[in-house]
Amino acid sequence: MRPPRIDALQFINPSETIFEEMRAGGVDAVHITVSYHEGFRDTVAALSEWNRLFEAHPDLILRATSAADIATAMETKRTAIFFGAQNPAPIEDDLGLIEIVHQLGLRFMQLSYNNQSLLCAGCYEAQDSGLTNMGREAVREMNRVGLVIDMSHSGDRSRLEAIEHSARPIAITHANPADWHDVPRNVAPDTLKALFETGGMLGFSLYPLHLANGADCTIEDFTAMVARVADTYGTAGIGIGSDLCQDQPDEALAWMRDGRWKKEREDAAFGAQPAWFRSNTDFHGIAAALRERGFDAAETDALLGENWYRFMANSFGPAP
Amino acid sequence: MRPPRIDALQFINPSETIFEEMRAGGVDAVHITVSYHEGFRDTVAALSEWNRLFEAHPDLILRATSAADIATAMETKRTAIFFGAQNPAPIEDDLGLIEIVHQLGLRFMQLSYNNQSLLCAGCYEAQDSGLTNMGREAVREMNRVGLVIDMSHSGDRSRLEAIEHSARPIAITHANPADWHDVPRNVAPDTLKALFETGGMLGFSLYPLHLANGADCTIEDFTAMVARVADTYGTAGIGIGSDLCQDQPDEALAWMRDGRWKKEREDAAFGAQPAWFRSNTDFHGIAAALRERGFDAAETDALLGENWYRFMANSFGPAP
Repeated sequence: MRPPRIDALQFINPSETIFEEMRAGGVDAVHITVSYHEGFRDTVAALSEWNRLFEAHPDLILRATSAADIATAMETKRTAIFFGAQNPAPIEDDLGLIEIVHQLGLRFMQLSYNNQSLLCAGCYEAQDSGLTNMGREAVREMNRVGLVIDMSHSGDRSRLEAIEHSARPIAITHANPADWHDVPRNVAPDTLKALFETGGMLGFSLYPLHLANGADCTIEDFTAMVARVADTYGTAGIGIGSDLCQDQPDEALAWMRDGRWKKEREDAAFGAQPAWFRSNTDFHGIAAALRERGFDAAETDALLGENWYRFMANSFGPAP
Repeated sequence: MRPPRIDALQFINPSETIFEEMRAGGVDAVHITVSYHEGFRDTVAALSEWNRLFEAHPDLILRATSAADIATAMETKRTAIFFGAQNPAPIEDDLGLIEIVHQLGLRFMQLSYNNQSLLCAGCYEAQDSGLTNMGREAVREMNRVGLVIDMSHSGDRSRLEAIEHSARPIAITHANPADWHDVPRNVAPDTLKALFETGGMLGFSLYPLHLANGADCTIEDFTAMVARVADTYGTAGIGIGSDLCQDQPDEALAWMRDGRWKKEREDAAFGAQPAWFRSNTDFHGIAAALRERGFDAAETDALLGENWYRFMANSFGPAP
C-alpha cells in the first residue's frame, strides 16, 4: 500500500466537483464535520444527506468508519469519508447517545465549540471550567466506544484536563501552535507538550484565522512552523487538519459562530484562503513544500497521512 | 384582600388530595417545577399534563402567569399554579426559546441544576465557571421578557455573577443559609448579602438535606434560623420555598440527580420530612411557630406570602 493522504478536518459544501478534487489531490481520507450546533436529530439528518451522496457518487467517495476503510478506498481509487461533530450537541444531555452516534458512524467529537458546553469550556469563554461532571463521564464513555476526543475549539485548561483524564490519546484535529500565532483557537505550548507525550495528534490548520498573517501566510512560513514543531516534539503526532470550508455560504459561518445562543447577528464572511491552499488539489504543493523545507520522503508521508492512519487504526473501536 | 400565602417551590406529584391540602393549608399560590432535565418538547408535555389537571379540577386550581392571578385564585378559593424549570434544559441551546417558554407560562428558570449547564455552573461542580457567554445572553433575555432567574442549584460564584449581571432582582427560590447548614446547595453569606441588596428573594427550604439535622430539625431550630436571617438582612427578601416533593416515587429523585448525564445509577430515595412539614396543611403550624418566635403578624404575613407576591408582581412581565 502506498502511503495514505489524510485530511483530519474539512467542512466543505459537498459536490461532485469537490469529490473529484479530492481524487485529483490524492486525498484518500477526510474527516468531515456533520454538526456544529445540530442536536441529535439534525445530526442524523446530516448523516442521511451524506448517505444520499454516497449513493450518488459510489465511484468517488466511500462511507468510512475504520482505518481499514481507507485501504479499501485506496484500492478502489475513492476517498474515505469519516464523520465528526465540532460540539457535543449531537449527544445533547444524554451519555447514552455517545455509543449511538458512534454506531451511526461518528468517529470524532469535540467536547466544546468556542463556548461552554455541558462537558467543558470553549476557547472563547472568559473562564475555563475544565472538564465538568458530565465531561468526565463523557471522556470515559468516548474512550470505551472509540469516539475520538477532539479539543480543537476548547479552552487550554479543558484541553489539558481532557488529555489527563482520557485513558487514550486524544486529537486536536485542526489548530496551530499559539506561540506561532497567538489566538485562542491555537494551542498553548504546555498543552501541545502534554498532547504529544500521551500519543495525541495535532492537525495543522490552513484556515486563515489560525495562520500567522492570515491569508497572506506564505507556504514557506507554514512549513517553517511545521518544521519547528517537528524539531521540538518529533514527527509522530503531527498531520494536517486543513479546516477547508470550500464553497460554504457565509450563512454557514454565521451558524458556526452564533448558533442559537445569541440574539445579535454579526456580519460573518469567510475570508480568503492562502493562494496555495484553496482546494484538495493543493495537497501536492504542500507535499512539495515540506520536501523543500527539508522533510525527507518518509517524514512527509507521515505528516500527510500515515500518522493519522495509525492514530485512526488505534482509536476508532474499543481499546485493545 | 387578605395576605396571600405563597410557596415558591414544590415538586409534588399532583393529585386531588394534594390540591385539597393546598386549600386546607390556605396556600394561595405555588411555584411548581415542570422540568429538571426535560428538554423543550418534554417540558411542553409536562405543561400539557397540567392543562389536563386544570381541566379536571377547575374548583381547586388555576393556571397562573401573573400576580393578578393570585388575587383571582383567592377570590374564587383556589390555588394559583405557576410553572418553572430547575434547569435551562427547556431552552436547549436556543436563546429564542426563552420568550417561547415564557409565552407557554414559565415564570422561573434556574440557570443550572447541580451540574454545569450551557449558562453557568451548578453547585456540585468542582469548578464554578460563573456565567458563560450564553449565560450572559440568557440573563439579558430573561430580564427582557420577565422570566425570573432562579439560582437555587447553582454554584455561589455563578449566583453572584447572575446577581451582578441581572438588571432585575433574582430569586433563590428554595435554599437556606450555608452558615446555618453548610452544604453546597445552601447559600454563602456574601451571596445572600448581594441577593438582598439587589431586591432579590430567598425562599427557605424545608427539604431535609437543606436543614440542619435533616429531618430531625425542629420547627424551633428552623424559625430561629429565619429570625437570624431577618435580623441580619431584614424581612423584605424572605419567604418560603418548601421544596415539597410529596408523593413522588424514588425514581423521580433518580431522574433529578442523574438525568441522562451519567451511567452508574446510585440508589436514590427521598428521605423523611420533618414531622412538622409533610404537606401543604402544615403551613398553619409554620405561621404559628413564626409568631411564637417573635415575628409580628405583619412580618409573618410578609414572610408567608406578601414578599413573594410583591416580587412576582414586579417580575413576571417586561420591566416597567
